[in-house]
Amino acid sequence: MTTSYDTIRAVLWEDDKLKLLDQRLLPQQEVYNEYQDSDAVAQAITDMVVRGAPAIGITAAYGVVLAVRKRLAEGGSDIVERLERDFTHLADARPTAVNLAWALERMGKVLFDLPEGADVERAMIAEARAIHEEDIAANQKMGELGAALIEEEGYGILTHCNTGSLATGGYGTALGVIRSAFAHNKISRVYADETRPWLQGARLTAWELVKDAIPVTLLADGAAAHLMKQGRVKWVVVGSDRIAANGDVANKIGTYSAAVAAKYHGVKFMVVAPTSTVDMSLASGDLIPIEQRGADEVLGLGGQRIAAEGAEAWNPAFDVTPAELVDAIVTEKGVVLNPTTEKMAAMMEK
Amino acid sequence: MTTSYDTIRAVLWEDDKLKLLDQRLLPQQEVYNEYQDSDAVAQAITDMVVRGAPAIGITAAYGVVLAVRKRLAEGGSDIVERLERDFTHLADARPTAVNLAWALERMGKVLFDLPEGADVERAMIAEARAIHEEDIAANQKMGELGAALIEEEGYGILTHCNTGSLATGGYGTALGVIRSAFAHNKISRVYADETRPWLQGARLTAWELVKDAIPVTLLADGAAAHLMKQGRVKWVVVGSDRIAANGDVANKIGTYSAAVAAKYHGVKFMVVAPTSTVDMSLASGDLIPIEQRGADEVLGLGGQRIAAEGAEAWNPAFDVTPAELVDAIVTEKGVVLNPTTEKMAAMMEK
Repeated sequence: MTTSYDTIRAVLWEDDKLKLLDQRLLPQQEVYNEYQDSDAVAQAITDMVVRGAPAIGITAAYGVVLAVRKRLAEGGSDIVERLERDFTHLADARPTAVNLAWALERMGKVLFDLPEGADVERAMIAEARAIHEEDIAANQKMGELGAALIEEEGYGILTHCNTGSLATGGYGTALGVIRSAFAHNKISRVYADETRPWLQGARLTAWELVKDAIPVTLLADGAAAHLMKQGRVKWVVVGSDRIAANGDVANKIGTYSAAVAAKYHGVKFMVVAPTSTVDMSLASGDLIPIEQRGADEVLGLGGQRIAAEGAEAWNPAFDVTPAELVDAIVTEKGVVLNPTTEKMAAMMEK
Repeated sequence: MTTSYDTIRAVLWEDDKLKLLDQRLLPQQEVYNEYQDSDAVAQAITDMVVRGAPAIGITAAYGVVLAVRKRLAEGGSDIVERLERDFTHLADARPTAVNLAWALERMGKVLFDLPEGADVERAMIAEARAIHEEDIAANQKMGELGAALIEEEGYGILTHCNTGSLATGGYGTALGVIRSAFAHNKISRVYADETRPWLQGARLTAWELVKDAIPVTLLADGAAAHLMKQGRVKWVVVGSDRIAANGDVANKIGTYSAAVAAKYHGVKFMVVAPTSTVDMSLASGDLIPIEQRGADEVLGLGGQRIAAEGAEAWNPAFDVTPAELVDAIVTEKGVVLNPTTEKMAAMMEK
């Protein structure tokens, strides 16, 4: 059942090339860009051609494949230095999602541990594909685990940003739970915050859900508390870009506002993310680097300036929801209720 | 001091005509539309050429002047019936702001109490001008009362929607408090929610504040809780479209979300509105009619569809913040701290 409602892939490795669905053009145009150079892949991550913590990790892994191919073709004695620059370039593409660093570390470990005479490119492709396939499997597992937490039937679910096939290897994290819960007839409708300023909810989540025939209702981010007051949702389900050791959760700006409103209304709050998103090296969410994006994303819309000249803008791309507002963190290794450092550590050691 | 930082008028009665600054075109174009017909005025209110609870009350009062002039010119025996239709048409233009009904009732009372042989049009113009001027005076009074509540100096203030000269007869309600507090060096900066879907914050509040050289920083509505967590603001200051007898406050969608976040962070929450916004006939906010606007405001941006075909939208224009989340209601008659029905009644009877 859980593999239905799953028709989209945003990251593809085909014909020895990386193909990325250009998410800046959705939903008006469905265009796959092709990449054969790791610097261009890094730029695509920065520019949000591809976004979503797991998806940028997978994309970076394929970026390493392209870097290795290029540096091997170039030859020369400083190949290691040049590859390290490629890794750094990919790592610096965006700061908040830890999946990026996680995927690069995993690719690097395989690369630098290869035996003499190994087929390097083939090994790199195999590892990137493994990262990709494990992510999809993790999402399907999380979909089942998360849907099992939803007891009342017939209500809506509120989600924020896009956490679906577009944000991951496929199926999705929070949207995977939603796909699974819908397949099990546990939810009637998805309420999707439009998610300003980048409008991932309006442009991406609505598109994914319409494609899979799951009913979706968009709302302005500021309307979420009013929705909760009306009793239309029992759960808020979101993804994450980085989870600290104590269960504090960095996610798309606006998530924290939804979590505060959920607590006030007795609505439960679920975070769905693979263990590649968990950063046990950071004791709390205060230590997570928060990307500040350009003011123009708030001062303008669709390339047109909307605010008066002279107005400034504050545009943090993420916020941190403290563990005390989180009812459940769902990873592929299991569910952590009311997260603490001890419970998170126990889950990670499984 | 309080009359500085006040350079804008959105509603004008000039050359025996009503002129409305077309707020749909701001900040790109500053165009005043002229009206000589009350039906066109009603349509302008519905279409949000003019918006803001006090401003639509004042506009409707001038609309009555135009209706009276037209019906007097037409003559005939059913003049009262035709005028009643004009009043109804104006009253139905938008449902939530009670200032509209309040202004019409006041104009109707003068009209139907006029002595035989009075100069009807002149009396109507005088009453509409009085409503307009009293609103500006009320705003200046509220500006002083509200600014006096702000004790800590040097912080920012968060506001939502537009409550300035554009939303009122002039000076503004919440923005009047902000103008006054800035004139007294009590605040360093205004943080303005962009206020989706209509973007009153980005398009109107930023424009007003830039015009008056008050520093303004826009943010996505969902970022407000993150801003409060950082300790950048000590007060949220908003206007209202209708205040119930118990102090529950209807205001632009997203206000309630900001109020919930303010309570969670120990940030204080002030509502600034003239007594023409208070509806003592409604016991609580549950009884306030909430306007639902078209889905296209959420599904599209600047006339272009952004969400996939098949997605739905929920677009309530207002929400209700319960009195328990309100630290102060400021009217021209005085300040009500921690509002209750008894305190509101005592203030109204002053």
